[in-house]
Amino acid sequence: MIYMNNAATTFPKPPEVIEAINDYLTKLPIDFTRTGLKAKVKNYSAELREIAGEFFNCKDTHNVIMTSGSTEALNLALKGFRFNNCNIIATQIEHNSVLRPLNYLAKFGVETRIANADSTGFVQMAEIEKLIDKNTQAIVINHCSNVTGAVQDIKTISKIAKEYGIKLIVDGSQSAGVINVDLAELDVDAFAITGHKSLYGLTGSGMLLLKKEHKIEPLKHGGTGVYGNLTTQPEDFPYRYESGTLNYPGIIAMTEGIKWIMKVDIDNINLRKRKLWRLMYENLHHNEKIKIYFSEEHNSYGVFTFNIDGISAEEVNFILENSFRIIARAGLHCSPYSAMAIDSYPQGSVRVSPSYFTSEEEIYTFITAVNKICDSNYGTEDEDSSI
Amino acid sequence: MIYMNNAATTFPKPPEVIEAINDYLTKLPIDFTRTGLKAKVKNYSAELREIAGEFFNCKDTHNVIMTSGSTEALNLALKGFRFNNCNIIATQIEHNSVLRPLNYLAKFGVETRIANADSTGFVQMAEIEKLIDKNTQAIVINHCSNVTGAVQDIKTISKIAKEYGIKLIVDGSQSAGVINVDLAELDVDAFAITGHKSLYGLTGSGMLLLKKEHKIEPLKHGGTGVYGNLTTQPEDFPYRYESGTLNYPGIIAMTEGIKWIMKVDIDNINLRKRKLWRLMYENLHHNEKIKIYFSEEHNSYGVFTFNIDGISAEEVNFILENSFRIIARAGLHCSPYSAMAIDSYPQGSVRVSPSYFTSEEEIYTFITAVNKICDSNYGTEDEDSSI
Repeated sequence: MIYMNNAATTFPKPPEVIEAINDYLTKLPIDFTRTGLKAKVKNYSAELREIAGEFFNCKDTHNVIMTSGSTEALNLALKGFRFNNCNIIATQIEHNSVLRPLNYLAKFGVETRIANADSTGFVQMAEIEKLIDKNTQAIVINHCSNVTGAVQDIKTISKIAKEYGIKLIVDGSQSAGVINVDLAELDVDAFAITGHKSLYGLTGSGMLLLKKEHKIEPLKHGGTGVYGNLTTQPEDFPYRYESGTLNYPGIIAMTEGIKWIMKVDIDNINLRKRKLWRLMYENLHHNEKIKIYFSEEHNSYGVFTFNIDGISAEEVNFILENSFRIIARAGLHCSPYSAMAIDSYPQGSVRVSPSYFTSEEEIYTFITAVNKICDSNYGTEDEDSSI
Repeated sequence: MIYMNNAATTFPKPPEVIEAINDYLTKLPIDFTRTGLKAKVKNYSAELREIAGEFFNCKDTHNVIMTSGSTEALNLALKGFRFNNCNIIATQIEHNSVLRPLNYLAKFGVETRIANADSTGFVQMAEIEKLIDKNTQAIVINHCSNVTGAVQDIKTISKIAKEYGIKLIVDGSQSAGVINVDLAELDVDAFAITGHKSLYGLTGSGMLLLKKEHKIEPLKHGGTGVYGNLTTQPEDFPYRYESGTLNYPGIIAMTEGIKWIMKVDIDNINLRKRKLWRLMYENLHHNEKIKIYFSEEHNSYGVFTFNIDGISAEEVNFILENSFRIIARAGLHCSPYSAMAIDSYPQGSVRVSPSYFTSEEEIYTFITAVNKICDSNYGTEDEDSSI
């Protein structure tokens, strides 16, 4: 079995992550430096806030808010700013985790404007700028495309956003842990992160890095373990945004995942992925039956996405899985406009996403599989064939 | 170390729960009966929906919606029904996870009316009924008090709610896994559950059991892995309510936790807790210095809550932890009006909550500790004493 769907969820996790979860599951959650359970579990969050602040270089600029994933982080940002009677600019590379909250905001008079991406999934600044008018209140953009791996030029977009006095919300689902993210440099208002992808943590965990100057509406109201006598939501961070008992296994896993990335060094992780990506590209791009979707100039090397002439993406995926035991992913990848931009709509594409732990041998097995699929007539056989 | 704060988070977890998490962490999340990762992870939810439907007897009546805990479940229900320009009746025993969302709804013209509880934390139906008028749209009530263990008469409240055409939302945080909950019988519109308390699962997990006839506004919008071409939220269950990658470790833990409860039998678990509660009560209630807060008639036996004359709840808790290594909890327990009802405001009370796994020996250690605290002059010593 070869798992290459790491852009969905990374597997395996580093041993440090698994050990920390086991520790949490089997040991009393008590820290005798402070009183009671609550104090100790609060420390898990404090540790993550500390390490995330360092990793994303945002200690002085952004608050680290715990969420159940990047979807919740994006919902918190997009709804929390209470946008109304305005327009927000998104792009063709957005995931449904951005498009669907934006469409929900239509009931508050928010118009969504979609900036075009080019055929590699990269969005030229001019495409965004031409949509800006005096009613524009925010730009929302996916830092790295989950379809083509295109890395957007957030620094330039951020400068333009500041010029126009527009908020910038960035979906970091496919960039956190994949490329170096320096928030002090990028200067974005809100940055959404998920734990279970390239931070090597668990599903159900994430963070919103929100500029300290912003005080937005929480998504959830409830108990905070402190200010027990207050029947309204506390005003101060982090209590304003973090109600109810948090996902401590998820928080611990993100902490250990980030520590592991810092130990291995994100540049080494990215070099490794770049090498594996190059191996696939060099061995497959000469094949005329294969169309590879990517951005040469702005590539995260997190995903390798393609189609084979005459065979649907779903079928290629099915054959990879059932004949070659390779786990990839096919379809629109929850990003329908991306497929339009790269001209793979409505069938979508096949996406392969190795991780730091994927071996060259596994990559060669994949290359051989794809060549075999191209050489044979899988596409013309009956669906019931015993391939 | 004696852990008796199980009403906050249960510890230890049954071995079956820990094994299942380890399995998930170390094995490929692939199920070859269906195609791709997504299919398999969806199955985790399907399995929990199946088993929760059985355990809460709501297969035919309620949809099981995955949430990050009971706080999110309550937020989804309270905000999702889009209550506006009306009044909602809550009670003095509510947790801040209900009171704070209700206070947020004030901006939509929702008035919160608080029905009084008696000094044992039980709410008489008359206290609720006298607050109902033609603008009342919902009753929200805590099934079991997290302060006194009082079990409310949901069946009667449900009948009255139906009579008046009012929705009934129940906070099951302290009843799920503690007492038998039969939703077909209780007939409530929405029932909120958390995973990490008496379902023996993980923090960050929960469910909302929502009557199938209701279609409410989701709290979060985003990707669902299906309907990828749809840039608005899907209309159908479960996709309408479950956006983003779910907390699979949490879902797996709840499934295994419920299976374990069904295996041991909830009546046996409750009998065990009742026995431990009785042991504390019989050995402590004669002590004139000790005030025990409980409902004789409507007791879940999930918590044992008390105060000692002349020593603050916080201090008793501190001494229990530091001199006797017993983990309890002190304060308002995120339920300020409860403290008013039982006359422990503003200091609150000390709460001890054993689990099925607590031994008689541990209970005796606790009893001895409390008697020692009563007999000595801890309350009058310096804070810096080396007790």
